[in-house]
Amino acid sequence: MRKTIERRSGVALWRQIADGMRLAINNGDYDDTGMMPSEATLAETFGVNRHTVRSALASLADEGMVRSVQGVGTLIERRDRLTFPISRRTRFSQGLGGQAKELEGRLVHQTIEPASPIVAKALNLATGIGCVRLETVGIADGKPISAATSYFPADRFSMIGDVYARTGSITRALAELGIDDYVRCSTEISASHAEGIDLRLLKLSPGAILLVTTSVNADTDGRPIQYSRSRFAADRVRFFVET
Amino acid sequence: MRKTIERRSGVALWRQIADGMRLAINNGDYDDTGMMPSEATLAETFGVNRHTVRSALASLADEGMVRSVQGVGTLIERRDRLTFPISRRTRFSQGLGGQAKELEGRLVHQTIEPASPIVAKALNLATGIGCVRLETVGIADGKPISAATSYFPADRFSMIGDVYARTGSITRALAELGIDDYVRCSTEISASHAEGIDLRLLKLSPGAILLVTTSVNADTDGRPIQYSRSRFAADRVRFFVET
Repeated sequence: MRKTIERRSGVALWRQIADGMRLAINNGDYDDTGMMPSEATLAETFGVNRHTVRSALASLADEGMVRSVQGVGTLIERRDRLTFPISRRTRFSQGLGGQAKELEGRLVHQTIEPASPIVAKALNLATGIGCVRLETVGIADGKPISAATSYFPADRFSMIGDVYARTGSITRALAELGIDDYVRCSTEISASHAEGIDLRLLKLSPGAILLVTTSVNADTDGRPIQYSRSRFAADRVRFFVET
Repeated sequence: MRKTIERRSGVALWRQIADGMRLAINNGDYDDTGMMPSEATLAETFGVNRHTVRSALASLADEGMVRSVQGVGTLIERRDRLTFPISRRTRFSQGLGGQAKELEGRLVHQTIEPASPIVAKALNLATGIGCVRLETVGIADGKPISAATSYFPADRFSMIGDVYARTGSITRALAELGIDDYVRCSTEISASHAEGIDLRLLKLSPGAILLVTTSVNADTDGRPIQYSRSRFAADRVRFFVET
């Protein structure tokens, strides 16, 4: 399929080709192989010479979108991902700005259970104190982005599961329960292979990667109100930390 | 093999068992299978009943160290990982505090090349301006932790590769070149499968996961001095963001 490239003045041809390739990658044009076509094929497709194709591929490689592997070809590393800011103001429901049209939070399961030592330490409670545990899934434009396990002290937030089920937002649920504002205190970030229930909740295949955040939110008096372990589909999300 | 558990007063038995299991996991006792032994075997090994074993496993699961999978058993998710703070003061050579005895930076390759659009934008230069590109590996206690590609404006830092090769530290190399202090402006964090040269540099097997950071450092006048894309072996490292 021949792509149409306008030879606009003021934008280098390789840049236009790179933009065209990015669009094709995001459209899933190359999903069959997970690789870019050969340089010769790309040159023909875009109606340019191989030197221009190489410059365009180098630019996409710099962005981390493709990676050239000696003797193999050009692998597609990722499509563009949703960018989540990690900051004192981090909220799933607001963090995506204009990147998604529709954000939705779905309650999968709720229980009340005694705080394990880890949960108790994070929430500054005694071990064994009752906590509400929510299992939730965050969905952007119909696509599951994250699965989260969150704990809240049951004495203050026994109703949070029901309110979350209705509103689809932790921020709105907390607001209904009297928490007008809260801050993210800290976030730990790691990565692992997706397993078990996360494969189903996030519609991933075995071998898929999770970005895992462990975080504590506190009210404006500094009291911890929420401890969460969130698993993000790594091929759909990146994090951004401004320091 | 029978483990010795002191029935100390003041520390719950399940907590002692959990500590013993953590030690065994970190020692690699279960590396053959990547799984914890059965509850019955663990109960016998530690000389406690199954209820205590289950409490200990639940605590390790809360930490993210193991994960119970229905019908399969208890998978070992990770050993304890080095924790890197992501902050304005982030430096590889200082970030690990007491977590590693010896930190080493090794120069793999250096070139001078024209800034690609991505590099130019990050460093606030015109596209095509000469930059020093360093390929480096960060090593903690003899184990490779991260592989990094870093760009520096060549006009100010043409010697940085040589100084880095001698000192093993970007911070020290910058100091020798007149940068006494610098700050991390922003960090993007994503995850992907390790491929190509990273498998070799980080001594990873295919399928291993990388935590990838893209970051810009600036001098105290706010001028960008370094743009880096670092790949961390995800089974050896986690990040910590204080907000």
